[in-house]
Amino acid sequence: MSDRLSQQFAFLIEADKLKSVLRGTNLCDGSRRENSGEHSWHIALYALIMAEHATRPVNIDRVIKMLLLHDLVEIDAGDNPIHGDHDPAEMEKVEKAAADRIFGLLPQDQAADFRNLWDEFEAAETDDAVFAKSVDRVQPVVNNLECGGGSWPEYKVTPEQLEIRVGVKVKRGAPALWAHLKTRIDAWFTAE
Amino acid sequence: MSDRLSQQFAFLIEADKLKSVLRGTNLCDGSRRENSGEHSWHIALYALIMAEHATRPVNIDRVIKMLLLHDLVEIDAGDNPIHGDHDPAEMEKVEKAAADRIFGLLPQDQAADFRNLWDEFEAAETDDAVFAKSVDRVQPVVNNLECGGGSWPEYKVTPEQLEIRVGVKVKRGAPALWAHLKTRIDAWFTAE
Repeated sequence: MSDRLSQQFAFLIEADKLKSVLRGTNLCDGSRRENSGEHSWHIALYALIMAEHATRPVNIDRVIKMLLLHDLVEIDAGDNPIHGDHDPAEMEKVEKAAADRIFGLLPQDQAADFRNLWDEFEAAETDDAVFAKSVDRVQPVVNNLECGGGSWPEYKVTPEQLEIRVGVKVKRGAPALWAHLKTRIDAWFTAE
Repeated sequence: MSDRLSQQFAFLIEADKLKSVLRGTNLCDGSRRENSGEHSWHIALYALIMAEHATRPVNIDRVIKMLLLHDLVEIDAGDNPIHGDHDPAEMEKVEKAAADRIFGLLPQDQAADFRNLWDEFEAAETDDAVFAKSVDRVQPVVNNLECGGGSWPEYKVTPEQLEIRVGVKVKRGAPALWAHLKTRIDAWFTAE
């Protein structure tokens, strides 16, 4: 028991580092960059509130678990802003190694369960994963809109790029959310 | 639908402010104070990992939802460090008003559901709420131990105070966690 608890605490202490990984998005008030720990909380809350808008019925409890875990690999791999440049194949390799190490801190049964959930999220094939990905993509758009475009000017984001890199993924799992935001997005780019 | 989505987004945008509420506890590396948004993520993860150590069987999905919501009132009421001085009756009044306002941003059905969960957490009577409270109390102890006592010296915490204000509550819902930490806690106060 004591060994098991030691492993569980070691994992939770390691997880604390996610609060120091900074993302490409700002807080809604623009005061600073968001970190991946607080982002994980915010999108779990997004999923809970927005579950009724999923394209297909989801198991919201599984979605929330996925979202609580999904960014832990960034402790080793860092955050890769969706509008930044990075090599997807190299990134996948680094993130898989991070998943091996970080989930590997847990007792074997939990390590396997969590790794499976993370693999499912990454594969984005099940209804739960597709919705989780949509929620993960939509929150930064809202934060950017709230602070006057946020990091869009810095990344020189065009409306086409936003549609391809973000809109398509949000629409796959939660089209009503994208439709609702589209007026605000168009207005922002028109004013730009 | 559009009105409903507007209310849901308004709530989620308001929730972003929790990332700017600073707590009495530091990150594990001692680099800065923890905020209540990232704390909410961390304890949801604690609950997920530690569910098997609950005194009585819990519905972990409900516990996680409770923990995602439990600190939102701090947007209006601020964080009240457990070792700080505050008037509990006044605090309860302020937090209830905050819950009215913040959950009241949601569509009526969700506002009622979330308010009920928050009331259940605050009352700390059901098995789910008791375990949720234990997890909420144990994480700061771990963070303080990780950074050499953290904010304990600042709040002049004594071993007796820690036992009464924290230990009793952790033991109520998850005694194995307190037993596991006790050696480290005793060692810290002996060395102090």
